Amino acid sequence: MGLAFEGIREGEERTFSKVITDRDIEAFAAVTGDVNPIHLDEEMAARTIFKGRIAHGLLTGGLISAAVSRFPGVVIYLSQTLSFRKPVRPGDTIEATARVAEKMEQHDEMRLETACTNQRGELVVAGEARVRVLETQPPIHPVVPEERTP
Amino acid sequence: MGLAFEGIREGEERTFSKVITDRDIEAFAAVTGDVNPIHLDEEMAARTIFKGRIAHGLLTGGLISAAVSRFPGVVIYLSQTLSFRKPVRPGDTIEATARVAEKMEQHDEMRLETACTNQRGELVVAGEARVRVLETQPPIHPVVPEERTP
Repeated sequence: MGLAFEGIREGEERTFSKVITDRDIEAFAAVTGDVNPIHLDEEMAARTIFKGRIAHGLLTGGLISAAVSRFPGVVIYLSQTLSFRKPVRPGDTIEATARVAEKMEQHDEMRLETACTNQRGELVVAGEARVRVLETQPPIHPVVPEERTP
Repeated sequence: MGLAFEGIREGEERTFSKVITDRDIEAFAAVTGDVNPIHLDEEMAARTIFKGRIAHGLLTGGLISAAVSRFPGVVIYLSQTLSFRKPVRPGDTIEATARVAEKMEQHDEMRLETACTNQRGELVVAGEARVRVLETQPPIHPVVPEERTP
């Protein structure tokens, strides 16, 4: 078991919060190639049930990835489920939370409950992640060698 | 049932392909706030089992969102599952595919099988999406009125 993984407790959580801007939505569209008009075309989006543009679901999901990365060690994703409950609009403040639901010690893996809420406290994205906590060689956290008895 | 939804057949698929660049990874980090060193710090990433930087899982997942958006109508996400099978590195060419596994006609919803493969044909991300196909008012696809018999 790695040192970083060992230091994490079940029930611990990390959060990450930001305002989703028009510019974020445009940058996300450019990076991923998702130029769906519901995200980019106000005139078209106004003609849907949403009555205006919404952020890409995976952009909001990316904030979970940011929360997850704040655990100690180098955390990598094994899986993520995302259930999109309410639209996120430009100007919304989204807080992503990742809480350690279970530690699987054999492979330094964790099951995380993940969620995003908006500035009104409404759940906008729900889901679950599995992650692995990597150690580096040499470790980021210096290992104090045990004293040897000759 | 909307016109756009009606025109989609089970088994149909849409794809989206692109090279993931260093710049994409940096832009994704800026947009989402995920500045995990495994994505951004070559020196640190080289000291992990990956032996170098990898792309954010949700960046690769975003290409699925781009493929999904290429179905007719305005397609919105209800959910997406992502299982990360192999690392994606800067310079990799990723093809995302979304295939209609099932149409649920009551709410113009579809279950999609989604996957990303790299330039070697290896599966890097597997998963499933549920989406809804929105119509716009007035519709994007002009509706030809039926002839009336007086």
